[in-house]
Amino acid sequence: MPSFTVFKGTESGAPKKSTTTKPDQLTGDNVLIKVTASGLCGTDLHYKNADMVLGHEGVGVVESTGPDCKVLKKGDRVGWGYNHNTCGHCQQCLSGSDIHCPERKMYGEADLDQGSFASHAVWREAFVFKTPDELSDEDAAPLQCGGATVFSALHDFPLNPTDNVGIMGVGGLGHLAIQFAAKMGCRVTVLSGSDSKKDEAMRLGAHEFIATKGKKELKISRPLNRLLVTTSAQPNWEQIVPIMAPGSKIFPLSVAFGNFEMPYFPIVVQGLTIQGSVVASRHVHQKMLQFAALHQIKPVIQTFPMTEEGIQDAMTKLENGEVHFRAVLKAQ
Amino acid sequence: MPSFTVFKGTESGAPKKSTTTKPDQLTGDNVLIKVTASGLCGTDLHYKNADMVLGHEGVGVVESTGPDCKVLKKGDRVGWGYNHNTCGHCQQCLSGSDIHCPERKMYGEADLDQGSFASHAVWREAFVFKTPDELSDEDAAPLQCGGATVFSALHDFPLNPTDNVGIMGVGGLGHLAIQFAAKMGCRVTVLSGSDSKKDEAMRLGAHEFIATKGKKELKISRPLNRLLVTTSAQPNWEQIVPIMAPGSKIFPLSVAFGNFEMPYFPIVVQGLTIQGSVVASRHVHQKMLQFAALHQIKPVIQTFPMTEEGIQDAMTKLENGEVHFRAVLKAQ
Repeated sequence: MPSFTVFKGTESGAPKKSTTTKPDQLTGDNVLIKVTASGLCGTDLHYKNADMVLGHEGVGVVESTGPDCKVLKKGDRVGWGYNHNTCGHCQQCLSGSDIHCPERKMYGEADLDQGSFASHAVWREAFVFKTPDELSDEDAAPLQCGGATVFSALHDFPLNPTDNVGIMGVGGLGHLAIQFAAKMGCRVTVLSGSDSKKDEAMRLGAHEFIATKGKKELKISRPLNRLLVTTSAQPNWEQIVPIMAPGSKIFPLSVAFGNFEMPYFPIVVQGLTIQGSVVASRHVHQKMLQFAALHQIKPVIQTFPMTEEGIQDAMTKLENGEVHFRAVLKAQ
Repeated sequence: MPSFTVFKGTESGAPKKSTTTKPDQLTGDNVLIKVTASGLCGTDLHYKNADMVLGHEGVGVVESTGPDCKVLKKGDRVGWGYNHNTCGHCQQCLSGSDIHCPERKMYGEADLDQGSFASHAVWREAFVFKTPDELSDEDAAPLQCGGATVFSALHDFPLNPTDNVGIMGVGGLGHLAIQFAAKMGCRVTVLSGSDSKKDEAMRLGAHEFIATKGKKELKISRPLNRLLVTTSAQPNWEQIVPIMAPGSKIFPLSVAFGNFEMPYFPIVVQGLTIQGSVVASRHVHQKMLQFAALHQIKPVIQTFPMTEEGIQDAMTKLENGEVHFRAVLKAQ
């Protein structure tokens, strides 16, 4: 101890059980967490062929604490997300934008011997978040990245409760964004390919639902003041630009590569904002969990066992767009 | 009266003298302005082949006022810019973003029988701005569009006087942006193709000058918190993205068509903002003129006579990149 089970990406893409060993004694403000649940995110699929431990929507219970821990104690219910550490002294860290610290340690880039597809993990107390009593472990897991990503896009850039917020895509991120935006008082307009998710979107708090597939022009009751793009594919901008209000903001939230491309002229003359945003700085992550607890915002989840087979099954379903709406792996 | 001389675009692109006639009596809050000077802007070149009166950086003197005028009187020195009218009752008008009024009357789209390449023009008092005593007519002209465009990009979106502001391009817009940003207390970094404009940029207030041509990687003392792109061509983003601070803002200010295209991944993970911005709402236009007067911000101009030949000469020089830095047409 601490030696624990982890599940890694492999060349074939099939998750493989392995073991990570840490020094016998916890140092600094490190805590050892026993994982109880983990969400499965689209980003995990990006890394399924990498030689690294997968998973970054971790939830569990503190088993032991390092000598410098000040907040957490054994038995505390906690979670963690995409970012594991920052420098603590740069402009970004000091101004509360620690998620943009140039020395941040992000999933996929650092600490590749650990993840949330595991029996345990060791992280700095400073980057671990208490799970509110109101949230179960399974429900708290998808909030650690999916929830943080959409909450941050709503929270960090001045939002008015009178705004009409568009959510494009009803999946792992989108179905949480609908709930957060609705509970912030906003009018919520959901854009989805077909009508198949309409009832559920309305139940989650949407006020208007627009099926986009095959439509040349979208009919909307009120122009959008903000649009969160949660689909993995980029929108058809010819459809979207005409329903954006002047001075409105577009948040492309999916992690993707290649170029961002949209018509130039409307950006300038309509004063549109294209706003990049990635998960959440720590103070925002904390507020997100508190907001979810207060308003009973919960993901719609589908659970799988945290085993090679369970992970493989969940990943295949996610790749095929069959997860409804977030897969959560449960410790066995 | 009021029948006056105007200069229009033509099929061949050579400006042509013509006449515009208005009703005998001024109605509403219209004012008749005798034009004394006009800036020449890149946008005028876009319309040189259109059957419309050219020019939208107009400055002159009020000759007479309509029955509903409340502010201006005969003899007042005034100017006007890109926008001639708005609806007055939409969300944008009511919230001080009148430049985004869906019913705005912009140069090139409305009032094609009038422009600032003319002896006179008739505009609503509400869209005409008093010229501060500290500014000459010739100096005030380029502020009405060029000045408004760069000032608005600095003013309307939270700017910190401690920011490092990048100005790409030292031309009609860029040389004004350097002055505005420097007087706002910002550190100003100028990006230009070659070193040829370095001395002048530093004299105008720049703190750092970077020649970009042929460089794979740009060396910069401090990452940019904001970048105003004032060049007509889009930047080489591979050069630019690495010098942008996390959470920084990019303003593509040139009016162009086609697609906006830049690498997608850094937008998201660096939390970059692509911010569209076009000239200025009226209260910002007023502040811009006052700020320029207070800080003695003046364009560097090259004057031409307001004649068919003079306009043609100025347009040709602008097309060839030979104007230093803004062409101003003077009434004869």
